[in-house]
Amino acid sequence: MNAFSLSQLIQDELETDQFSQDVTGNLLPSAQNNVVQAFVFNKESGVFSGVSVLETFQTLFTGQVDFRWEVSEGVEISSGTQIVELTGPRNTLLALERTLLNFLGLTCGVASLTRAYLNAVKPHSVQILATRKTLPGLRALQLSAVQAGGGKIHRRSLSDGILIKENHIALESEVALLQKAHGARSPLHGIEIEVQNFDSLNNVLSSPYSPDVIMLDNFSAKDVQTAVALIRQKLPTCRIEASGGVDLQSVRALAETGIDYVSVGKLTHSAPVLNLSLDFRL
Amino acid sequence: MNAFSLSQLIQDELETDQFSQDVTGNLLPSAQNNVVQAFVFNKESGVFSGVSVLETFQTLFTGQVDFRWEVSEGVEISSGTQIVELTGPRNTLLALERTLLNFLGLTCGVASLTRAYLNAVKPHSVQILATRKTLPGLRALQLSAVQAGGGKIHRRSLSDGILIKENHIALESEVALLQKAHGARSPLHGIEIEVQNFDSLNNVLSSPYSPDVIMLDNFSAKDVQTAVALIRQKLPTCRIEASGGVDLQSVRALAETGIDYVSVGKLTHSAPVLNLSLDFRL
Amino acid sequence: MNAFSLSQLIQDELETDQFSQDVTGNLLPSAQNNVVQAFVFNKESGVFSGVSVLETFQTLFTGQVDFRWEVSEGVEISSGTQIVELTGPRNTLLALERTLLNFLGLTCGVASLTRAYLNAVKPHSVQILATRKTLPGLRALQLSAVQAGGGKIHRRSLSDGILIKENHIALESEVALLQKAHGARSPLHGIEIEVQNFDSLNNVLSSPYSPDVIMLDNFSAKDVQTAVALIRQKLPTCRIEASGGVDLQSVRALAETGIDYVSVGKLTHSAPVLNLSLDFRL
Amino acid sequence: MNAFSLSQLIQDELETDQFSQDVTGNLLPSAQNNVVQAFVFNKESGVFSGVSVLETFQTLFTGQVDFRWEVSEGVEISSGTQIVELTGPRNTLLALERTLLNFLGLTCGVASLTRAYLNAVKPHSVQILATRKTLPGLRALQLSAVQAGGGKIHRRSLSDGILIKENHIALESEVALLQKAHGARSPLHGIEIEVQNFDSLNNVLSSPYSPDVIMLDNFSAKDVQTAVALIRQKLPTCRIEASGGVDLQSVRALAETGIDYVSVGKLTHSAPVLNLSLDFRL
Amino acid sequence: MNAFSLSQLIQDELETDQFSQDVTGNLLPSAQNNVVQAFVFNKESGVFSGVSVLETFQTLFTGQVDFRWEVSEGVEISSGTQIVELTGPRNTLLALERTLLNFLGLTCGVASLTRAYLNAVKPHSVQILATRKTLPGLRALQLSAVQAGGGKIHRRSLSDGILIKENHIALESEVALLQKAHGARSPLHGIEIEVQNFDSLNNVLSSPYSPDVIMLDNFSAKDVQTAVALIRQKLPTCRIEASGGVDLQSVRALAETGIDYVSVGKLTHSAPVLNLSLDFRL
Amino acid sequence: MNAFSLSQLIQDELETDQFSQDVTGNLLPSAQNNVVQAFVFNKESGVFSGVSVLETFQTLFTGQVDFRWEVSEGVEISSGTQIVELTGPRNTLLALERTLLNFLGLTCGVASLTRAYLNAVKPHSVQILATRKTLPGLRALQLSAVQAGGGKIHRRSLSDGILIKENHIALESEVALLQKAHGARSPLHGIEIEVQNFDSLNNVLSSPYSPDVIMLDNFSAKDVQTAVALIRQKLPTCRIEASGGVDLQSVRALAETGIDYVSVGKLTHSAPVLNLSLDFRL
Repeated sequence: MNAFSLSQLIQDELETDQFSQDVTGNLLPSAQNNVVQAFVFNKESGVFSGVSVLETFQTLFTGQVDFRWEVSEGVEISSGTQIVELTGPRNTLLALERTLLNFLGLTCGVASLTRAYLNAVKPHSVQILATRKTLPGLRALQLSAVQAGGGKIHRRSLSDGILIKENHIALESEVALLQKAHGARSPLHGIEIEVQNFDSLNNVLSSPYSPDVIMLDNFSAKDVQTAVALIRQKLPTCRIEASGGVDLQSVRALAETGIDYVSVGKLTHSAPVLNLSLDFRL
Repeated sequence: MNAFSLSQLIQDELETDQFSQDVTGNLLPSAQNNVVQAFVFNKESGVFSGVSVLETFQTLFTGQVDFRWEVSEGVEISSGTQIVELTGPRNTLLALERTLLNFLGLTCGVASLTRAYLNAVKPHSVQILATRKTLPGLRALQLSAVQAGGGKIHRRSLSDGILIKENHIALESEVALLQKAHGARSPLHGIEIEVQNFDSLNNVLSSPYSPDVIMLDNFSAKDVQTAVALIRQKLPTCRIEASGGVDLQSVRALAETGIDYVSVGKLTHSAPVLNLSLDFRL
Repeated sequence: MNAFSLSQLIQDELETDQFSQDVTGNLLPSAQNNVVQAFVFNKESGVFSGVSVLETFQTLFTGQVDFRWEVSEGVEISSGTQIVELTGPRNTLLALERTLLNFLGLTCGVASLTRAYLNAVKPHSVQILATRKTLPGLRALQLSAVQAGGGKIHRRSLSDGILIKENHIALESEVALLQKAHGARSPLHGIEIEVQNFDSLNNVLSSPYSPDVIMLDNFSAKDVQTAVALIRQKLPTCRIEASGGVDLQSVRALAETGIDYVSVGKLTHSAPVLNLSLDFRL
Repeated sequence: MNAFSLSQLIQDELETDQFSQDVTGNLLPSAQNNVVQAFVFNKESGVFSGVSVLETFQTLFTGQVDFRWEVSEGVEISSGTQIVELTGPRNTLLALERTLLNFLGLTCGVASLTRAYLNAVKPHSVQILATRKTLPGLRALQLSAVQAGGGKIHRRSLSDGILIKENHIALESEVALLQKAHGARSPLHGIEIEVQNFDSLNNVLSSPYSPDVIMLDNFSAKDVQTAVALIRQKLPTCRIEASGGVDLQSVRALAETGIDYVSVGKLTHSAPVLNLSLDFRL
Repeated sequence: MNAFSLSQLIQDELETDQFSQDVTGNLLPSAQNNVVQAFVFNKESGVFSGVSVLETFQTLFTGQVDFRWEVSEGVEISSGTQIVELTGPRNTLLALERTLLNFLGLTCGVASLTRAYLNAVKPHSVQILATRKTLPGLRALQLSAVQAGGGKIHRRSLSDGILIKENHIALESEVALLQKAHGARSPLHGIEIEVQNFDSLNNVLSSPYSPDVIMLDNFSAKDVQTAVALIRQKLPTCRIEASGGVDLQSVRALAETGIDYVSVGKLTHSAPVLNLSLDFRL
Repeated sequence: MNAFSLSQLIQDELETDQFSQDVTGNLLPSAQNNVVQAFVFNKESGVFSGVSVLETFQTLFTGQVDFRWEVSEGVEISSGTQIVELTGPRNTLLALERTLLNFLGLTCGVASLTRAYLNAVKPHSVQILATRKTLPGLRALQLSAVQAGGGKIHRRSLSDGILIKENHIALESEVALLQKAHGARSPLHGIEIEVQNFDSLNNVLSSPYSPDVIMLDNFSAKDVQTAVALIRQKLPTCRIEASGGVDLQSVRALAETGIDYVSVGKLTHSAPVLNLSLDFRL
């Protein structure tokens, strides 16, 4: 998400929360409406992501609120870390608090969960991939948080490379689809094919048109191991991905098989937010 | 979220996913690009929400794809329920699949978690409330899903009523703020005050200007019980809310105290999606 | 209206007026296109509102035009007051003149009319309320001007509290609707009911579920007086509002009855602009 | 305002009014949520404008609400005329009522005031012109209503023709500006010059480069008469406009001078709305 | 195009190019991600237009990238001119390069072609006019570039003056349309009529209601000469325009006939871009 | 460009052209404002692209104008072909004519030029690729037209695959960049490297990390031939692209070398429109 569209999203969210109509904050006497300090901290440990969020808030509130932070993308923050310090009119800080926390809670939550997967597979070098299973309107922001956490991105969109899946194979054979993919692809598009069982895998391996990546969908760790051996023998440069309901428990066994990638939908569709709070410094 | 802004959000999301540039779907021969049927089903049980999503997809794809569904807001769907049937060109269905599932997974996930809280407090009549801790851009959609699940809404925005919180009380006394609130409120705005301990509660109860609602923040269930007795005696028409890190385990004890409301941030900031899938009918 | 959406509205309006294509201003030789001063003044006395407008113009024209003003929201300005001084390239000032005046004429016009109502009811403490009868696209800006003038806001939108009106009562009894309202309301939503005659008022007063506010619609001042007595006796904490075609002549008699609120649609649907002009200082 | 941008404005306005969150309408039992009829009528006589508004509402609510009307742009409607009949779900009609009336009240108000000016100058053939003194965001809609009322449009924007005004003349002579205007104008742009006294008028009349139109600003009716004679003698094809604080009383005397145009800012900056209401047919 | 809408267009274009997701630029080690210099130069001679583009980039990248330029609108730039110097983080420059060049290539291309037409008609004083045949979304930017090149603008839109064309004349006679035009025009709207042969021209010349401009469409240079003589004799103040497939070869003969305007669609619908490049200074 | 964003672009363009304020079309008497037929035809031969444009116009004008066409994407149209027939109110057709033609002229122009390149390389199987050198706001529409003409797309954006260019190599060696690219790439991203001379090519061929595609930039046809031999020998599966100022004359010699791709910026940055016209059928 570039700075310009993130700025629009934050402005819209401030509007949604009626940022300028804080009927409670307005109770405070204007005589006291002088500059105060507040800070955002995390009530549980995790991984920070959200520099672009902070930069955008800073730009939007230039001349009104000063945002200062030391954290950078991907650093671990133990519980109670002072993430960002805000200096500005008390009523403005009260009015933007919830919107700011809603953004940072999301980005830190995604980064923290991604890091947890990375820790779970150590010391194996498998890459943890985010998928297109993202929340509406938040794909770019979530994928950026995955990267902060140490994960990588599978595809950003349907135009980002060829991924032949079960639903395509149901309509045409693996061999036919791979051949077409080779003819149709853009110069910079890779070709990946998803297989759901060994029959399908064998079809792929027998094809004169090889994929760049093979995805083993819902294979047990043991079956992955068998498949890896088959693939490495036949297509030594082909990369291998596992997918399908992978969680923090099951990911390690997959990593141990020597595959290149594990894709994890949970990183972006079901990551809990990191618990953050804003306190005034009185 | 009214139909018009939901439509914009869905269009943006289709654009983000490069709906019109599905380089994989385009491999399928156009001769086979005839009308097929597919259906969305849930791989785990839950509660449905998303009629407005379906209606909007139907409007956007009028003349191209036919969406049919029997489910209605808030119905329970056991695992494997056929939620919606799609009839349209195969390539169009392949291209919209992920966007549709991302929306419905979100709305059903929120509704399902809300229902779980309602079930956890049965047969007590306490209301489960969603908060302003929503995901950026998704507040209206999430709150609608909370309602489908049986929950209610605390505040939609900062302009939606007066809620005096810890950060305000740190700056002025409860009594002073309640007096100002009575002078400043719009005719239709209620007044609520959050207390974090019994001292603060006693300040509130001693005020000549009473709140309409008192929120007990991070009180143990036992302290809630004590507080309820104090409040009911002094302010019999005042309604009572509990809040603060409430989960599916702790909610029941709170409900048993006879309070009116429990607010639960998790409903909207950390609800996992409901696991949905789209299959073609061949 | 927060600063971000106001900025968008002003940008759109400059576009509508083809700000960058001033074919007349472009006649002036570029050699003379140096910095000049101009000021906005009012040709009739009134009340100023529009600081947010000026701040937004200043932000939009940062580095090009300097806006300076001493006025603040709600101050009275006698005819001929220099409201704002502009310093910038002559052609830019000529091109933005009409747009700036169209905004300030609107905001000052609304504030001035509101103040006139407040003056008309002095020394009575009745509140003057703006309604949802606002001009398309301008609700937030107009309501802000009402507040500058000293008025308050009844409801910002349909979600801002429960107001049972004639059209609802035609479909269900007052008693039934009040009961439902108590069950359905959000914790911070007040309940108001509109009555059009004494029969309806008596229904309300007999209901076991009391409203927070009763609106007397199109009651004569004398009938308001009678109604106030009835209500105060039966529901001493209930607040009372009068509405319906209230003008600067009729408002005083209503105020004398001791009611809490008078709502006035004219403040926002038919306020004439304040007559402003921009002059160059040569 | 074309249908597409009007549609966006109406959608935004429904959003502002939280059309989908009518907490009062939602009290009505869904069992009764069947189709009903309602109609909009005017409580005072006037001139109708708003067909494009009705067409857009019809498009936005296709399949939900049926809008039927007999009125056409510019027809006179005596008090109590049934302007439009709505058929649809009761709750939808309740929720859109205010937004619909806010639009139609505005358009009918502008058309009615314009017609009043036309009636005031009968039987003289002078044209009544709207100016660029319009309300933010509403120029196109207001100008369309002026046309419905029988008025014409002076300029839509700064790019719509050359109008040399007092502020330009303060910087360069009339003669110099007229010469430049002839060199700079687009083929389809006319040239008008505003004069504020007879000296300035004589400068214009002595210029070798003639304007297409001369605007007499703040001239008394008598002075207009004198000026007309001067202009007609020297520049027989030049058209003549009067402007400056023209009201319903003063417009007739101006019309009698035989000028071509009178421009009236009030048509668009201060027209009161036409008083409209929506009633259910039970 | 004013600065605000140009800013939006540039932001959209950066988004389209996934400015924040430059997967190649991201290969460069962040340790080297320090500030560098680059410059844009032209690989072929032409005319510069694009100051507003540069100003907008500067505003969008304030605090990140510094843009410096000496060129001004309409100056001739020989091949290899350093047009603008950029100073900023290397990865940012790499990521914005293509978007910046796409804008400047367009504006310089249009300005250069316009200048070529002006050179072709020297020393004749005929004006070269751009038409409404512009590229979608780019009209304002293209017309501004035409002006930089020395051309003028015929009409910006359908509301910008009356131009009676062949398709109108097919439906009503020239005389009837000219009469209506005189009655209907706004005070600042000129009237032009297109004729396609001498019969039509004679109809126009015989009309009691004269046009301000006559357009000779697809007349040979010789026929233009004949027509000019006829028009000058009958309507000495009427201006004359030629149009229809005018190219750099044919324009001179038209100019020699003494007409006022030649309109050239190619300026805006088919101008090749000026070949620009960005180089790093290492 | 999906149907939703294309619809927005067309609406914006109609607004820009003041579609609803056609002051000339409005001269025609409303009594004659009945339904007529018109058709769009091409004045020169070419290749059609624009079905999505027509579909979107049809959707926008549903109920007002009927668009009928037989052409499909990519068909050749000889001069004078009736491309689309419009049936609707005369004034509406007059008002939309220019906008419709501006869109179709663009899309057909791009498709026609692309086809010309394809014809120029026959019977060689080299693919003709469009680049990111597109016009602001029009990338998706232009790329779709390239596909209609028979071309392919190199990259849609910076996130669409890794393309190491001259500016990167100036900062790090080919070998180092290729190694990093292998580590960083998403599973579906290919790796391409641009070389500008044989030294650079040899560096690439000596790298242990091979690219998927090598781009020969500004190589003569003869040098391309030499390079192809070197590459085929060393990296038999590597695909080869030529680029750099390719025109209709030079493309054939490149094709004969047996390379896979030629990329042509002119397809999208400098394609002249196809000359189209709209005529009424009287």
